[in-house]
Amino acid sequence: MGPEMSDYAIDFEPVGRIGQCTGDTSLLTCSHHLGVGINSICGGQGTCQSCKIQVVSGTVSKPDRSQQDVFSSTELKDGWRLACQTYPASDCTVYVPPDSMTTSQRTQVEGVEVTFSSEPPVRGYDIELPVPSLSGPVADGDSLLETLNSRYQIGCRRIDIDVLRSLSLLLRSEKWKCQVSVRDDEVVAIGQQSSLQLGLAVDVGTTKIAGYLVDLRNAKTLASRGIMNPQISYGEDVISRINNVTKSPDMGMKLQRAVIGALNSLAIELCAETNTSVEQIVEAVVVGNTAMHHILAGLPVRQLAQSPFIPAANMALDIKARDLGLSLAPGSSVHLLPNVAGFVGADHVAMLLATKAWQARELTVALDIGTNTEISLISNGEITSVSCASGPAFEGYHIEHGMRAASGAIERVRIADHGIQYQTVDDMPPVGICGSGIIDAIAQLYLAGAIDKGGRMKDRRIGIRTRKKQREFVLAGKEGGSEQSIVVTQGDVRELQLAKAAIRSGIQVLLDAYNFSEEDITRVIIAGAFGTYIDISSAIAIGMLPALPLERFRQVGNAAGTGARLALISLSERSQAASIASRLQYIELASSPHFTRTFVQSGYLGRYRIRNGERLEID
Amino acid sequence: MGPEMSDYAIDFEPVGRIGQCTGDTSLLTCSHHLGVGINSICGGQGTCQSCKIQVVSGTVSKPDRSQQDVFSSTELKDGWRLACQTYPASDCTVYVPPDSMTTSQRTQVEGVEVTFSSEPPVRGYDIELPVPSLSGPVADGDSLLETLNSRYQIGCRRIDIDVLRSLSLLLRSEKWKCQVSVRDDEVVAIGQQSSLQLGLAVDVGTTKIAGYLVDLRNAKTLASRGIMNPQISYGEDVISRINNVTKSPDMGMKLQRAVIGALNSLAIELCAETNTSVEQIVEAVVVGNTAMHHILAGLPVRQLAQSPFIPAANMALDIKARDLGLSLAPGSSVHLLPNVAGFVGADHVAMLLATKAWQARELTVALDIGTNTEISLISNGEITSVSCASGPAFEGYHIEHGMRAASGAIERVRIADHGIQYQTVDDMPPVGICGSGIIDAIAQLYLAGAIDKGGRMKDRRIGIRTRKKQREFVLAGKEGGSEQSIVVTQGDVRELQLAKAAIRSGIQVLLDAYNFSEEDITRVIIAGAFGTYIDISSAIAIGMLPALPLERFRQVGNAAGTGARLALISLSERSQAASIASRLQYIELASSPHFTRTFVQSGYLGRYRIRNGERLEID
Repeated sequence: MGPEMSDYAIDFEPVGRIGQCTGDTSLLTCSHHLGVGINSICGGQGTCQSCKIQVVSGTVSKPDRSQQDVFSSTELKDGWRLACQTYPASDCTVYVPPDSMTTSQRTQVEGVEVTFSSEPPVRGYDIELPVPSLSGPVADGDSLLETLNSRYQIGCRRIDIDVLRSLSLLLRSEKWKCQVSVRDDEVVAIGQQSSLQLGLAVDVGTTKIAGYLVDLRNAKTLASRGIMNPQISYGEDVISRINNVTKSPDMGMKLQRAVIGALNSLAIELCAETNTSVEQIVEAVVVGNTAMHHILAGLPVRQLAQSPFIPAANMALDIKARDLGLSLAPGSSVHLLPNVAGFVGADHVAMLLATKAWQARELTVALDIGTNTEISLISNGEITSVSCASGPAFEGYHIEHGMRAASGAIERVRIADHGIQYQTVDDMPPVGICGSGIIDAIAQLYLAGAIDKGGRMKDRRIGIRTRKKQREFVLAGKEGGSEQSIVVTQGDVRELQLAKAAIRSGIQVLLDAYNFSEEDITRVIIAGAFGTYIDISSAIAIGMLPALPLERFRQVGNAAGTGARLALISLSERSQAASIASRLQYIELASSPHFTRTFVQSGYLGRYRIRNGERLEID
Repeated sequence: MGPEMSDYAIDFEPVGRIGQCTGDTSLLTCSHHLGVGINSICGGQGTCQSCKIQVVSGTVSKPDRSQQDVFSSTELKDGWRLACQTYPASDCTVYVPPDSMTTSQRTQVEGVEVTFSSEPPVRGYDIELPVPSLSGPVADGDSLLETLNSRYQIGCRRIDIDVLRSLSLLLRSEKWKCQVSVRDDEVVAIGQQSSLQLGLAVDVGTTKIAGYLVDLRNAKTLASRGIMNPQISYGEDVISRINNVTKSPDMGMKLQRAVIGALNSLAIELCAETNTSVEQIVEAVVVGNTAMHHILAGLPVRQLAQSPFIPAANMALDIKARDLGLSLAPGSSVHLLPNVAGFVGADHVAMLLATKAWQARELTVALDIGTNTEISLISNGEITSVSCASGPAFEGYHIEHGMRAASGAIERVRIADHGIQYQTVDDMPPVGICGSGIIDAIAQLYLAGAIDKGGRMKDRRIGIRTRKKQREFVLAGKEGGSEQSIVVTQGDVRELQLAKAAIRSGIQVLLDAYNFSEEDITRVIIAGAFGTYIDISSAIAIGMLPALPLERFRQVGNAAGTGARLALISLSERSQAASIASRLQYIELASSPHFTRTFVQSGYLGRYRIRNGERLEID
């Protein structure tokens, strides 16, 4: 049955979702029908401009006057439209830019998808063994290796002891047929013929853990899931956890057990979701910042937090899952990607791997924004990195009404002539404000002249009032359905200024080291769940990101998780990661000249705003 | 201060002990002063002939008439004497044949000593690391590998995770100096500079466990110790233990824990004795029969005891000590030598390795006598083996007054015209009879005509009486100081006949397979603690061993333990062991033609006795 005459096929990219849409349905409504989350702060009234899209191919309705105000004629010619005011007139391909995507689409397990040729570290081989007899009493393990090597012409020499322990029973119950999983020259798992060869990729963040279950035979991600890092109860950030471990000898073990327990649960959940079993997971790759990496591996962290901030190991590690307490296939290994320095970890390497940023020929800045923000500058094949303590403000910590990007968190804010507009996660009544919302709010207040360059709130502008001797901006009053008014305080602004100054000064130190200026940057890659949610324009306005045309920015989601998956399914990607880590130059911010001055200067809000591709000075 | 004029230096070989002796002290007394245990059943009266020795060089007193009765004139010319009747007249070298040695010398940890060039699997390297700084913040593990590889030009690539966990603290407390133990391409231990590199070799027998602590740097054995295998409480022999494990699922784990616990204690004791620590043991080698090997490694044994008796693995295994529950150096490995078949294990391979029997050009039979006896026939570079269930009778089990060769066990018996003479372990009052004593007793009764060829005791001959409807031979009456009479019963004779028939028929099957006859055998190598204690002449008389001139026999003690030590200190010995195992042909006795007939025939007592090198028919 073909589509109705009035039905058009609309392809939303880069999400890749295609669906039918009638000519009297707006692209915004159509996207929502298909589950593609496009922003609509004003509710489809054409006033908020948050649903910008680009029609790449096909015909759509003519832009009305309101859109002509929003877009330049060149932009309109290029297909830029507001989705809520646009109707299809043929099959279309529509590009949804990152900053038009809603958070409901953006789970922390998202990441850039990269095409790759699979070259898995573990391969399964089906074999059938000769039945032993009194005249040919070959031992089970010996017979297995002999059959395997002669059938497949591989040089497998060893069998993991845990695998060997289960071999004899399996061979007899499966009538001498089995599948053998081989890693390097070792049998690491056995099972019934043609069973799945699963892999687990994990990005262990300070706050969140993202896990992916991958079919190693075809490199497909079968399921993904994000959970909180349970270590959070032992300290919000890396430094407080290290201090905790350093103070008490068994705290390290407690933290290790906590994260391993979380990984075991994650594996079980991912397997339950796909009707598979954790014993089928024959390989895992874990990335994380250096402290998370060390705690997970049971490595000491005391020396990480003291100058000169030395990791116990930067090299890639292969550890038997059982030596970490992970319950996967009995003989399986966990590959930990290499770290770079005390505060530039395997997650950053994985991000550079996934985004291919490390191969960039143009001047590129790649950031992984989180409680700790790692920044790399890539120029002429050289990679140089810094690490900034941006703190947990972006996760909502130390913010008066701060919260994570959960249901009811205000994540988008616009201040227009007709008042304050906001959008919450899952469109629930507002309960607090998350990182992207605070950045938006401060940017909007700044652009509206209600906050000065130094971050000082001006009383009685817009919704600013003074309470308990502190100025605050009332973002949502009780009338909006919330239990209490939701405010952004002067203290919150200061908190954000510190966080953004950390990031901005990190970028500046890298530029200074090579005598580049902001304008020289051709591409800015922003990774990390949080980095995907922020409004780039707002981040530029508050001076957190360099004032560059928006098309130079690329928000890539959880690229570290994608890098972990690449290293999971491909040995050549794994060796590329090692090569990235070894080529990477690390600059210690504390030892960089003029750092304090740079940091202080980076505290000021932005000088420019970007409007319709133009850089305009903020007055 | 030189020796007194009347002092001579006497060198007792192969023990290698040298000491001073005056011309009026017999060589027997001299040997006892030096702690060299030479038999003296008659207490030095010259009547029991148990203290035969050979004076290899030097001058001694002329043989008196009694010795002329014992030795032929050729033997006397060759220096053969009774030690109790011989006095030195110059410095001498004296050879003490194995059957003149007392059990107090023969601990189960003894074995042939072989000279070897050490080529250890683990080597220690002293290094000093550059101190990391803000400008050179190299990670500890990475710095270690870099320094190690560039200083010693080796290709070490990995650090065991447990080693890595302790590295950072050690480097800082040792001021960046340390010793690194490397196995293959992995760091398996770290410690202070110039620390010991210890190895542990263990022979796990069904009844006894022998352990050796070895300095890997110079291949010296620092200490050795024998203990009982605690698994004995789960079954005396291999079959009953396998049955136990097969019946109950967690019994395998119990047995494994028992033997591992024993090995851990053994290691602690050996280290205490040498003022070292188990953390300095960087490598272990374990040998044992296939069942002991499997239980120790946690491998399944059910299929071992059912036709066609298939091992889970024959190949050599390298297992991390921690994966076995062994507490040695954190990253250390245990190497298990290869097995050959369900009932020819790594201990037999180790024995062939240690004795070099596998290289023999002449027809050689090598036996490892124990609860299970493995026999190899080596001919023209071919090695063929059988395994015989000889049972625990030699250990004293199922023998009326049987006991192990502990203090007070009757271990030597002579029936002379003037009565019954016996010797006990440690010269303590008799409390029972051990394997070598029973063989002696039955042989002596047989030679004296008190037992017939079929094993039937003849009433009222010598000390034979009937009690509770069973004939028995009173070996030691209460008057000898024992609590009760010690007897050898008709049932004991039957028990011994079964045990010796198992061994003799195994030899016969091997000879038959290649159409050899007994006389073709050029050398018989007898290994195992028990095999060292037996009187070869007695074993020939009862028809347990082939009737060959005594000089064709070589009793080598715990050669399996020596083989384990060789494999511990030398990688080339280790690969030779693998080559032995792969070349060895195994014959399953049960499937050998005419086996039952051969076994029944082997039950008869011997046809010949050996006297002064001549083979005499027993009438």
